[in-house]
Amino acid sequence: MHTFKELVAAFGEYFNKRHFPATPATLYEPGEYFLSWGGKRIRPVMCLMGNEMFADITPDAYHVATAIELFHNFTLIHDDIMDEAPLRRGMETVHMKYGSNTALLTGDVMMIQSYENINKINAQYLPRILGLFNKTAKEVCEGQQLDIDFEKMTDVSLDAYIEMITLKTSVLLAASLETGAILGGASEGNCRHLYEFGKNLGIAFQVQDDYLDAFGDPEKFGKETGGDIRQNKKTFLLLHALEVASAEQKISLQQLMQQNPADKVQLVLAIFKECNVDEWAKQLKEKYLQTALKHLDDIAVMSVRKKPLQELAEFLIQREY
Amino acid sequence: MHTFKELVAAFGEYFNKRHFPATPATLYEPGEYFLSWGGKRIRPVMCLMGNEMFADITPDAYHVATAIELFHNFTLIHDDIMDEAPLRRGMETVHMKYGSNTALLTGDVMMIQSYENINKINAQYLPRILGLFNKTAKEVCEGQQLDIDFEKMTDVSLDAYIEMITLKTSVLLAASLETGAILGGASEGNCRHLYEFGKNLGIAFQVQDDYLDAFGDPEKFGKETGGDIRQNKKTFLLLHALEVASAEQKISLQQLMQQNPADKVQLVLAIFKECNVDEWAKQLKEKYLQTALKHLDDIAVMSVRKKPLQELAEFLIQREY
Repeated sequence: MHTFKELVAAFGEYFNKRHFPATPATLYEPGEYFLSWGGKRIRPVMCLMGNEMFADITPDAYHVATAIELFHNFTLIHDDIMDEAPLRRGMETVHMKYGSNTALLTGDVMMIQSYENINKINAQYLPRILGLFNKTAKEVCEGQQLDIDFEKMTDVSLDAYIEMITLKTSVLLAASLETGAILGGASEGNCRHLYEFGKNLGIAFQVQDDYLDAFGDPEKFGKETGGDIRQNKKTFLLLHALEVASAEQKISLQQLMQQNPADKVQLVLAIFKECNVDEWAKQLKEKYLQTALKHLDDIAVMSVRKKPLQELAEFLIQREY
Repeated sequence: MHTFKELVAAFGEYFNKRHFPATPATLYEPGEYFLSWGGKRIRPVMCLMGNEMFADITPDAYHVATAIELFHNFTLIHDDIMDEAPLRRGMETVHMKYGSNTALLTGDVMMIQSYENINKINAQYLPRILGLFNKTAKEVCEGQQLDIDFEKMTDVSLDAYIEMITLKTSVLLAASLETGAILGGASEGNCRHLYEFGKNLGIAFQVQDDYLDAFGDPEKFGKETGGDIRQNKKTFLLLHALEVASAEQKISLQQLMQQNPADKVQLVLAIFKECNVDEWAKQLKEKYLQTALKHLDDIAVMSVRKKPLQELAEFLIQREY
């Protein structure tokens, strides 16, 4: 068994190579540029962890992990086009550096490259892995479309938001674990529990992310807080606040969102606190985390095999802030 | 054996259904809208023809044909975004009707849907079909990128243009035939010849398309001629003319392209004729057609089995204009 950190290092080394041919450089260099930024590679590592829970890590797990990381990067490149984002992690986005048309094609070819990696696995697993991969890929697109739709809507329910977040981010985490488990020979039941662990952990992470953007300590959080509030982003916090606020508070919130005064963040945070949104968010995160850990508990393997995933949960969900 | 026309009708009926779930409608309706326009469905029919050359048409051939048609439509949706095309076949393009972001995602999810159809085939064929499909898909992206690159270059060689056209359009025709042949149990050698038939036929078709846009009879051609010349499009004709023209003719061509006078089409056509570009293009088309037909000849099946592909070649390559 390897620790979470060991697997991050191992996958980082494995993935740190060219993924595309040399020519045409106009198509493939932008992809290499984007991939060269590195990163924690959480999703592919989850695939390796799902695999090692049931067997020694197989070469196939590395192929699928690579496919998942390429797929994730494809979605980031296309999302950046859609969001017109100039920067990601402080680096110029692909469409800013190379133009939108090339960024679009770079994303397309990166998705195809992820299917090429899927096709490297042992044929006996191919239909099942490809099926789960396709299902998940479609769900990620659905989540992105719902996110676009919700931006234009004034009235989004918390349930609809959770559905969107689940599709946009959690299912890929869940599928990363499950593909690894399938390649490790896990039973259907164990696959199901591992998938649900990943899905619920992903939602807990998103609740935490929204919480930290509003209430986090900027020094510990690593970036300025209040960004979501300034952008009127529909978050767990805002949607819950709009559901529980008094008529008066609701009007205040809506006015702040329309008028964008200089002290908007401070005023919105005050209403959030009046509505106990901060405590509610902590409890919601805890609820999803506990659901995730219950599914991890229910997997029929020795507890020592679950340790890396417990480390992952601890890494993703910080208890202190 | 079925005729080309019968297969067009059979596939048209098979493909004429919903391809996506009902929700989220904001993601899937644009895809259904685009697919509902119909069309000749040349590529999927080529897959069925490649299949029937070696066996009775299998359900797997219909799955792969569907995947190919979805993939082709995905490329059209993304190409229209890149070209900022307002119309296609007289209909509003997806990005014009639904916005670029939705068109981008509609294309993405249509590509994934094509892989879902690939995954419906008998597992024994899956690695090989998926491998050919991935290779071809990447080549199509490479061709599109080269097309974008060439638009900005002043000096494109005819060879480079043929490479671009081959990648952008011919390899998908070739792969359509070969996937069908693989599913029909064809030998490697027969697969190779069929692929080369499709590839060369595709190039012949493109030469003809460029020829007709310049020299075609507008009534028979079905649209106004001279469009490529007006847009300074790099075509077989223009690139050859620039290679064989005298210094004086070359300067005239370049001035016409820069200055866009009212009688530009007429003047460019005059230079084309002085350079014998029209005769050259007819011969070039014939050369690729003959190469294609030679490969068809070389396929080791009874000649009656080649008849539908001869019909296809006749349909695509008109002898009279």
